[in-house]
Formats: sequence, C-alpha cells, structure tokens
Amino acid sequence: MAKLKLGMVGGGQGAFIGAVHRIASRIDDHWELVAGALSSDPSRAAASASELGIASDRSYSDFNAMAAAEAARADGIDAVAIVTPNHMHAGPAVAFLNAGIHVICDKPLAADLEQAEAIAEAVRTSGKRFILTHNYTGYPLIRQAREMISKGDLGDLRVVHAEYIQDWLTEEVQNKQADWRTDPARSGQGGCVGDIGTHAYNLASYVTGLTADALSADLDAFVDGRRVDDNVHVMLRYQGGAKGMLWASQVAVGNENGLKLRVYGTKGGFEWAQENPNVMQFTRFGHPTQILTRGGAGATAEGQRGVRIPPGHPEGYLEGFATIYSEAAILIRAANSGETPPKHVHTPDIEDGLAGMNFIRACIQSSQENAAWTKLA
Amino acid sequence: MAKLKLGMVGGGQGAFIGAVHRIASRIDDHWELVAGALSSDPSRAAASASELGIASDRSYSDFNAMAAAEAARADGIDAVAIVTPNHMHAGPAVAFLNAGIHVICDKPLAADLEQAEAIAEAVRTSGKRFILTHNYTGYPLIRQAREMISKGDLGDLRVVHAEYIQDWLTEEVQNKQADWRTDPARSGQGGCVGDIGTHAYNLASYVTGLTADALSADLDAFVDGRRVDDNVHVMLRYQGGAKGMLWASQVAVGNENGLKLRVYGTKGGFEWAQENPNVMQFTRFGHPTQILTRGGAGATAEGQRGVRIPPGHPEGYLEGFATIYSEAAILIRAANSGETPPKHVHTPDIEDGLAGMNFIRACIQSSQENAAWTKLA
Amino acid sequence: MAKLKLGMVGGGQGAFIGAVHRIASRIDDHWELVAGALSSDPSRAAASASELGIASDRSYSDFNAMAAAEAARADGIDAVAIVTPNHMHAGPAVAFLNAGIHVICDKPLAADLEQAEAIAEAVRTSGKRFILTHNYTGYPLIRQAREMISKGDLGDLRVVHAEYIQDWLTEEVQNKQADWRTDPARSGQGGCVGDIGTHAYNLASYVTGLTADALSADLDAFVDGRRVDDNVHVMLRYQGGAKGMLWASQVAVGNENGLKLRVYGTKGGFEWAQENPNVMQFTRFGHPTQILTRGGAGATAEGQRGVRIPPGHPEGYLEGFATIYSEAAILIRAANSGETPPKHVHTPDIEDGLAGMNFIRACIQSSQENAAWTKLA
Amino acid sequence: MAKLKLGMVGGGQGAFIGAVHRIASRIDDHWELVAGALSSDPSRAAASASELGIASDRSYSDFNAMAAAEAARADGIDAVAIVTPNHMHAGPAVAFLNAGIHVICDKPLAADLEQAEAIAEAVRTSGKRFILTHNYTGYPLIRQAREMISKGDLGDLRVVHAEYIQDWLTEEVQNKQADWRTDPARSGQGGCVGDIGTHAYNLASYVTGLTADALSADLDAFVDGRRVDDNVHVMLRYQGGAKGMLWASQVAVGNENGLKLRVYGTKGGFEWAQENPNVMQFTRFGHPTQILTRGGAGATAEGQRGVRIPPGHPEGYLEGFATIYSEAAILIRAANSGETPPKHVHTPDIEDGLAGMNFIRACIQSSQENAAWTKLA
Repeated sequence: MAKLKLGMVGGGQGAFIGAVHRIASRIDDHWELVAGALSSDPSRAAASASELGIASDRSYSDFNAMAAAEAARADGIDAVAIVTPNHMHAGPAVAFLNAGIHVICDKPLAADLEQAEAIAEAVRTSGKRFILTHNYTGYPLIRQAREMISKGDLGDLRVVHAEYIQDWLTEEVQNKQADWRTDPARSGQGGCVGDIGTHAYNLASYVTGLTADALSADLDAFVDGRRVDDNVHVMLRYQGGAKGMLWASQVAVGNENGLKLRVYGTKGGFEWAQENPNVMQFTRFGHPTQILTRGGAGATAEGQRGVRIPPGHPEGYLEGFATIYSEAAILIRAANSGETPPKHVHTPDIEDGLAGMNFIRACIQSSQENAAWTKLA
Repeated sequence: MAKLKLGMVGGGQGAFIGAVHRIASRIDDHWELVAGALSSDPSRAAASASELGIASDRSYSDFNAMAAAEAARADGIDAVAIVTPNHMHAGPAVAFLNAGIHVICDKPLAADLEQAEAIAEAVRTSGKRFILTHNYTGYPLIRQAREMISKGDLGDLRVVHAEYIQDWLTEEVQNKQADWRTDPARSGQGGCVGDIGTHAYNLASYVTGLTADALSADLDAFVDGRRVDDNVHVMLRYQGGAKGMLWASQVAVGNENGLKLRVYGTKGGFEWAQENPNVMQFTRFGHPTQILTRGGAGATAEGQRGVRIPPGHPEGYLEGFATIYSEAAILIRAANSGETPPKHVHTPDIEDGLAGMNFIRACIQSSQENAAWTKLA
Repeated sequence: MAKLKLGMVGGGQGAFIGAVHRIASRIDDHWELVAGALSSDPSRAAASASELGIASDRSYSDFNAMAAAEAARADGIDAVAIVTPNHMHAGPAVAFLNAGIHVICDKPLAADLEQAEAIAEAVRTSGKRFILTHNYTGYPLIRQAREMISKGDLGDLRVVHAEYIQDWLTEEVQNKQADWRTDPARSGQGGCVGDIGTHAYNLASYVTGLTADALSADLDAFVDGRRVDDNVHVMLRYQGGAKGMLWASQVAVGNENGLKLRVYGTKGGFEWAQENPNVMQFTRFGHPTQILTRGGAGATAEGQRGVRIPPGHPEGYLEGFATIYSEAAILIRAANSGETPPKHVHTPDIEDGLAGMNFIRACIQSSQENAAWTKLA
Repeated sequence: MAKLKLGMVGGGQGAFIGAVHRIASRIDDHWELVAGALSSDPSRAAASASELGIASDRSYSDFNAMAAAEAARADGIDAVAIVTPNHMHAGPAVAFLNAGIHVICDKPLAADLEQAEAIAEAVRTSGKRFILTHNYTGYPLIRQAREMISKGDLGDLRVVHAEYIQDWLTEEVQNKQADWRTDPARSGQGGCVGDIGTHAYNLASYVTGLTADALSADLDAFVDGRRVDDNVHVMLRYQGGAKGMLWASQVAVGNENGLKLRVYGTKGGFEWAQENPNVMQFTRFGHPTQILTRGGAGATAEGQRGVRIPPGHPEGYLEGFATIYSEAAILIRAANSGETPPKHVHTPDIEDGLAGMNFIRACIQSSQENAAWTKLA
C-alpha cells in the first residue's frame, strides 16, 4: 500500500515531542514525512528540514503558507502533525483543516476554550479528520481493558481512580520543556492539569466509557513564583453514579511518569500502570487476581490488535533491536568511508557468534558426557 | 544524512523475526529496505516484496542471484539482513560477504560449528562488517550495567546468574515457529540452548566482560518425541575465578520471555530482567538497594546513549504512539476513499480534545471557587 | 521482669480482633491474661474464659462488675483491653478508668463524638493511661518514616496520599464481622470511614506530624440497602499548606487490605504499603530511588527499635516458626496420650534432618571431585 | 488445654535463634518455658534464666544434668528446644531423647554425618518425637503449594529451582553469628551449604515430594581466608526424571534472605519467595497467571490451616500489633512507678482517638453538605 504523506508544524531542532511523532509515524510504515513548518524561524526551519530529509521546496517557516502550498500540490500532504506548544495548536489546525488537510494534533487541544472551539468549528465545517494524540490510548492492554468493561466484565462501574504523577518540576527548572509548560501565555491557564491531568482524565474516560458530570478540584502551585498549578486534586462524579478521584502532580518526588488507572465495578476490578504497560491486574470478585499480559493468555480481540511482538517481549524490545540496527549503520558508514567507528558502538559481531556456537557445542557435549566439565576456549 | 540501503533474506509472509528487523530498521530512520530474497518460493517472494514496497526487479528468490545482482548495481544494497532459520544463515552470509556486502544476521550464528567457521572465514577474507542481532545488548540499562562493571562499581566479579525461561513448548506445538526450532536439521543440534540459551550466555558475557573457561551442562527434552533439548542447566567457570549458573527453558509454565541477569562482585551487585527492562536494581555492599531507571537519576553516559524518550516513559511508549499514527492512517485512507473506517479504530478525536479543555476549565474554576462542585457538561 | 496482668472486655468465641490482641500481647512476653468479661452472655463468657485458661472467679459477664472486682483485688489487672464493637467502647472504658485501671482500646474510639468525649473526660480525671490500638503505627518502617520526616529528610511537606482499600463488602455480606460494621447503631454513623478510613487518616498524621485543618468529603454506600458508607473520597488541607487525598473503600474488587501511604516534600518522597510492610521506597530529589528494608542498610534508630528478626526475614517469619511449634505440641500431646496425630501435621523430622546432612555431604564430596555426580540415596 | 512445658538448651544472652524459638513458642500459647541450660557458663546461664523468668532451680549449665533432673521431676519438661551451634546438637539431643524427653532441634541436624546418625539412633531407640525446625515449611502458602502439587495441579514435575541468597558474608565479618558459622569445628564442613543450602534443599523436597537421586556441586569460598564455602552451585537429578538447580550464596550483594522456590510440571508452574511470603504466583498452562494470597481467594484447606489473620494482613501484622502492646507495658509500668516513660514510645492515645472521631464526623458532615469544606479543629 502506498504510504500517506505527512507534514509537520513544530518539532524543529531542540524540540521533544516532534521527534516522538516522527518515530511513531515510521514504526508501522504507513507514513512518509515530506513537508514541514518545523520552526517559525526560517533558518532553523530550513536546517531542521534538511536534517530530516525534507526537500527544501517543502520546508516552510509559516504554517499558513504551508497549508496553502500543500493543498495546491498534486502530491500534497495527506495530513499534518501539529506538535507546537498548546497556544500554537489552534492557528495551524484551523488553517490546515480549512485547506482540506487532515490534522493530527498533540494534546491538550489548545490553551483556552475559545481556541478549542475554533478548532472544533473548523473540524465541523471542513469534514476532515482530527486526531488528538492521547497516545496512552494506544496501549494494547488499554484497548483490552476498554473492551472488557464494555462487555460487562466489571459489572456496573462504581469507582474510578486515575493518577499521573511526576517529580521533574519539584524545583524551579529552566529549560525549553519547562519554560513553555509553566508560562500561562503558552501553556494556557492550566499547568500540570493541562499537561498531564488531561491525559489521566482522558484515559479514565476512554477506558470506562463514563462521562463526568461534575468535579470538585483543589489546585496548588507549590514552587515559589510558579504561575500555573503543579499539583491537582480532583473528586469526580460520573453520570450514572460512579465516583472518581484524580491526582496529577509534577512535584511528587521519586515518580517519573506514574500514570495509573484503577477501576472497580460490581463484578470486578483492574489496575494498570504506564511504567510497566505490558501487565494488568484483573480480579473477578471472589476469585484470585489474574496477571494479564499484552497479547498473553486471556488476551481479548482488542488486546491482540496492535500487538507487534510476542507476549513477554515488552514493548520496547523493538527499540533495543533498533539500536542494533542504528549501530550497524554507524559501523557500515564508517567502513564505507574508511573511518574508525566511535568507541561506544558495542554491537555483537562474528566473535560473539562463534562464542555462541561454541557454547551450544559445549553444552551438548557436556550433557552427552554426563555433565562432564567441558572446555570452551 | 542519506539512508543506507538494506536487503533482506528470509522474512516473507508468515515469518516472525523478519518483521521485527524491518520495524527496528525504521525506528531511527537510517535504513531503507530496497531488495529482498524473502522466500525461496518465487511467487511467495514476489508477493512478500510487493507488500513491502520493494521494486519487482529487486525481488529475488535465490540469495546467490541477489548477492550477484546487488553487488553489480550502482545503487546496490549496503547491507543484507539474514532472517532465515539457523541452518540457512551460512549460505547467504558467505555469499553476500564474498560479494562485498555487509551482513546483519540473526542469532545463533549457524546450525553447526562447520557452518559458523565458514561464515567467520568469509568475514576475515572479505573485510566486511558482520553484525549479529543479539538484540538484548541494545537496552540502555544493559549498556549502563556493562559500563558500571567495567569501571569497577561491582569490584571483582564473583557470581553470574543468567536465565531465559519460557513456556511456549510445554506441550507439543505445531506451527511455523515451533517446527523449525524443534527440527535438528534446521535448528542445529541445540534446541532451547541455541534459541534462547545463547541469548542468556551472550548477555552475561556482554555485560560482565568475562570469558567462560569451562562448563558442565545437563540438557533435557521433556516433551515426548521432541528431538532437541527444551530445558538447559549449566554451571560455568569463568577465567579469573568467577562462577556462573545458566538456566534456559521452554517448559517453565507461567513464563513468557523471562530473560534475567544477576551479577555479584566484591563491592556490589545488580539484577535486571527483560520483561521490565526500564529498571535495574543496584546495590553497593552495605548500602540500600537503588532502583536505577533508563535515563533516570544515576544514569551513566552509556546508559543515556540510545535513549529516545524521557525516563518513566517505558520503552514501548513509542509503540502505543505508533498505534495512534497507524489508526490515523486508516481513518484518513477511509476518508480519502469515502469508505467507513473499521469499528475497532478508537483514536481520540476533537470531542476528546474538547472534553479535555472542559476538564481543565472546570478544574481551574472549581479550585478558584474553593473546590466548589463544577459542572462539566 | 514480672509480667503485667491483662483483662479483656469482648473477644469471646467467634470474635476476630480479640484473638489478635491476645497473640500480640504474648509475643514480647510482657503480659499475662488473667481476667475477662469476654461476652455479655454469662455461659458464653464462662466457656470462652475456660478455653483461654482464665480462672473461673475472674470471668465476668458484666464489665462494671469486673471493673469493681479487679480494682478491689490485690492482684487485680494492670490494664484492660477493650475489643468490643465501636458502640461498646465508651461504657467499659469509662468504668475501668474510673476504677483506676489503665485502658487499651480498639479503634475507632467510639460510635459517636459524645461517647468519645465521655472517654476523654474519664482519661483526664483518672490520670490513667489510654492506648488506642492503631496497630499500623507499630511497624518499624513506619517509625523510621516518621523519624525521617521529623528530621527533615523530605524537606517541607507538600502532598500526602493515604488509601485503605478492601473488597470484602462488594456484595451484601452476612456474618458477625460484617453485621455490626454495617449497622449504624453499633458501628456509629461512619461505616468504611470509621472502620478503615480512620486507620489511613491516623497513619498519615502519625507519620507526617501534620494536623489537618479542613476536609471535603464525598461518601457513598454503593451496595443496595447498605446504611453506612462503603467508599470514601476526601480532599484534605493541612495546617502549613500541605494538601492531601484520602481514599478508603470496601468495594474495590481485588484489594484485600491495601493500606498505602505516600508523602512528598521539597526534598524527597516515600511510599509504603502495608501488604509488604518490610520495604519502603524513598527518593531524595534528583537521586535514584532507594529500597529501604526493615532493619536493613539505611535503617534509622527508630527503624531498628521493635525489630525482632534480621532484615530479609519478613515480619511473619515468626508466625511460620510458630506453626512448627504448635504442630510440635500436637505431635507431643498425641505421643503423650498414645493417640495418632492428625494427618495434616507436616513438621520436618529426623528423616529431614538426615536428608539435609546427606545433601551437605554430597555437595562437599561432589565439589571436591570436580562436580562429579554424587549419589544421595 | 494445659500448656506443654518447654526446656531450652542454648539461647542465652547474645544468641539469636533462641529468642526466635521462644517467641514462636508463645504465639499460639501451647508452650510455657520452665527450664533451661541456656549457656555452658554457669553465671551466664543463671542470668539468662532469670531474665526469662525461669526458676533458679530449673536453670542448668550442663545439659546432661538437665536431662536427668527434668526426667526425674513429676512436673518435668515435655520437650526440649536445642538452639546451639550445629556441632552442639547431637550431645543434648541424644541425652534428652534417652531420658525420654521429646526434642525440638534447630537445623542443620548436626555438624557431620556421624553425629547425625547418633541422633537418628536415639530417635529410633527412644521412640520420642524429634522435630527439626525447618521453619519455612510453616508458611501457609508453602503448605498450599505442597497440597496443590500432591493433588496434581502441576501435572508431572519437570523442573525445580531453589535459591537462598544473602550478602552478609560478602566481606570478612567478626561477630558471634558469623564466627561459628564460618568455623568448620562448630558449623561442620559445610558453611553456606549447611546454613542456608539445606533450607533451600529441604523446602524443595518438602513442597514437591520429590527425592533427589544425585547431584553435581561446585562450591566456593570467595572471601580470602574463609574456611567454609560461601557460594554453592548445584545441579540435581530427582527420582522420576525431574531436574533441579540449587543456588545458595552469602556473597550475593543486595540480597537479605532471598529464599525462592520455582516448580514447573506438565500442567502448571508456581513461584514463591520468602521475602513476601503472603503471595504466590501460580499458572495453569495456557491460562493467565494467578496471584494466590495467604488465605485469600483460591486458598486450599492446607493453605487455610495455620492462618491467624485475614488475607491482606501480612504475616507480620501481629508483630506491629505486638509493639503496641509492648509499648503499652512500658507506659503502664512507668505510670505505676511514677517514672517518665522513654521518649521513643509513640503509641496512639486518647488524642488520636478524638482526632479519629473528629475525622469521621467531618467526613460525614462534609459529604452531607455536598462535600463542603469542613473544619477539623
């Protein structure tokens, strides 16, 4: 199948989430990045595009110009990925939608409700697709949990607990990531609540199918001088009577990305945490708790969709594997150019292969000789 | 930087590890798959190539023909990935090396020592790179462990325990993966010892830098009629006096891919398990055990190299993210063709975005009003 | 040192917590149970007393009579343990305090504030000791956490999360334990909030030293017909600005006694869970998380007090050991009386001892002979 | 039921395991310690006896004298607990057995096979009970695992892995516990293999019911100058064809008392570790792994016997509870004598009780007022 053509707004040199979007778009080979307004600074935009193999005539520094130009090309992009700070989502989203181009957009939707509404209006009028990258909804076990709840495995839902706790803003931090996230002008009024609280909230809704009716919230900015919240306590009331708690924090020392969801109903309960996303604990009331693994015994149809590798190979297996391939590229480029490869490349080679064969040989020989000690060297 | 050109031998429809190699090659965008002898059956080779976007004139059904043709092209492949069963490694490896093409080869090296030596000889005479995909060596924490040991953080090594335990061959299994792995003609004399024992052995050597001197092994084939081993017990003696144990099993019920390494020296010890590869426990003697995370506090230079995403986002985060992108492709292709997208696509959209914005708004408003209950709908 | 004399009110046949109090009183050998009003039913009181080796003249069915009689004896009790349902705490507590006898009382203090005040008044006027068995405060690591916070290891506290979640009341239950706990007349107005919510609240205060200023609570009774709450959501504001959340539930399917405390300050954070009470995770901001074990490396003075067995032997080791002693008693009583001991007694005996010696002998012999296979039989 | 009378040989001041035996004997209240030869040094024997409340005429410094005297008394001991170093087991064991007194003895049975045989002979000729305190066999989940295997839940057993790893002898240690354990004259020829290897070996046999046929062992003494082994590698062959590995170590840095058992058969497998003894993972082949808890859902008859407290209260709950009772004794003794109790006593008191009542009141009030913020003070 021909690949779809992808453009990107934001994600130039020094950015974080843009690179994540690009890797994610390559993994299943459906997308090809061909255009970008990677920065509003023309020279940085051009340099970033060049690094990524984007043709210079499809590198833009203005998203409006990009939307117009790409819409006009016969080989124009199928979709644009918007990976800018929150306050810069609405402008490009509206521009591309109105130009008839599908949009993939990072979360949260916008910096304020007015911007959000403008996007929603453009989605309605354009009829184009709008995909919000609440990426945690992509985990196979999250899909499975959603299916199990929808099929009634938990019975009627009663209690939903979601938390997303980090510690990286425990003290005043000065870097590109922290700067815009703690600046209300760019992040919107919500700090922690927008950056990670929305992930927890979205995940709880996604998995349970419940709609929240009302909430009671207590937000704090614990670090002196911080202008947006860094700790969020919320009690929730869902339609139908279920109750929830949500905790998001950027000052919970010892936590990296502690996104966790727990759901309880009349018949069962489960617990899932993002830091080890390949397992989920599920209990039918009165029975032993089960450890469900990604694609393992007990996997449902939804839980098997989107599984790329066998159970027990954590998601992440592919990335270790990718490192081998990238180091192979380094070694081979060095060999091709006659250069010495960098010292830090530690890829297994023919000697490791021989050592492995020798190990097999010695094991079989030793075992055939009643476990006699057998030389390897 | 221009991408390197990759060819593949094996990995046609129905194969497992070929797809893993392809995804791994795409993640960091150094490689482009342009040629393949994906099957020895010409029609299957062609169909597989077409699916993967390989031009028909670069799809081969004979690896010798492929080696010759690719070596002769100006735009010929830089390297070939060999992803066939063990007994089919030596043939293509030697052919491509002799044709002057670098080789990336799956493990174990070959089905027997004779084949292994033939490859080693071709590596020596050709001067080409040979990369063996012991992929577990690519995990950032494995690199960090290796560096820590090499710097003396564990002192002089005393005891090394490696295990790789699975349960998928607990009973007689009939499928493509099991068939060749339990057939000595294709797998080589070693069954479990070759398939996963070598991974455990390689990992122990890779991390510790120790060379094994001798071993005592007790191998079993527990399933009736099985012609190769499915459980492997080994005691090891390393040069310098360290001792080891190695256990590999395909009949340990309840284990998926339980690859685990534990190393102890005069000053410290650590423990790492592949099923949750983003954490490692490290203890300096007399001090509390530390939980080291991939790229987190305490990460060394080696431990940070090859890290694509922040600590606390497990490797695998990218794969959940990739699912969102792949579903976006499905939605957009359907939109482009006017078809209804399949029901199982559950990607967050504009409604989720508005819900998130509403959540932020309600949180801030409630908090400003002393945590008053605030409507969401 | 002479043992102290203990009396008990409540805890007759069929009760749960009374037996726990009695075992706890024996472990360190400071107490001797000599008197009791174990039931208000005279015959049940007498039968229960006889079973426990209490002399018949010190078995009472009325706690007022008991208080008077014991106060009048030269060898009267030093203290009374009150282990009745909540609404029956105040009566005996006041009676014994006024009779000049120290009181050890189960939690929560009483069924309502009026009863609680009556007890407090009796404590003040009598000058006697009143010990409330919030038993979770007795764990060595809880003492250590308290000391660490008090010494400033966490800096200024910001966020406190306590939860105590169970599932045993997920459905309507009919038994002695459930009956009084779900009856407002005996349990007081609070159900879950009194039974386990107070444990979580007490533990948070105990460890942090913080005083709560105000709370916002959302209580539910999810099971049809239940007259007291079975799920409790609370947001807390502590004096000094720290914020808290507390969750208690008896309907969280898959949880047995999930009491968990997490505390975060400007400098550090920790996490402790009752179900594996011998470990605590502690993080200094910017450093790797440490696993602190009961009495292990990093144990403080407070953390070492009250440790009966070495680190790595979980609390509970003593109980496995006690089972051996109790089975020894069964075997010896049977031997003394010439009876056949019951089949379920599986205590290791001389054969096991010989087998162990044989194992040692064979290990040493095999190792001396270069790991030769050595017969055990 | 009348308590049995217990004597003790060894376990005087400064000893470790004697105190464990005494606590264990008290927990279920079947035993009363009435006599002892607590030390071979008369004054230390007398002082130790006095501390433990043993009457001075039943304190001995010679075990032969004790055996004779106690056998002659009408109220003589029912059994003696022998808690001396290994080389001092046989003497008293034989003496008491021959005097007609049952014996409870610490493990391993003796320092050498000759001593062991002497004990076995005395058991046979005396007809008295001999209980060896392989205490790990007392855990309820170990009993349950044994029953499950015996009932066929795992099918025919194939592979058994036992390990017991510690780190306390990583360096040269000088203390009473280390001294005799590393002295072949007192410990016997086996060091680590006798002290903890026998525990692992016994547990594997106890649970599986398998008899070992032969072994191959590789023992090391890694610490310079150490005269007994401190690391033990063993491969085992069981009757019937099952295979085993056993690893015991006192130099595995980061491990406190890592006793772990894993067993796999044709139908299922399980895994249990002593450091968190209240959970066991059990898998039926092809089904999700279950978490079995002590006395929880799925508990068998054997798994419920010997359970003193409800599931989810770890064994160890009783010890935290006991600390409250012991501190109550300190407070009450101080009150009785008019002294100030020590500062480290932190038992909850009436103020905590009032605070808890206030918490309940505030929760209910707040919840009734739509979660209004409610003052606690």
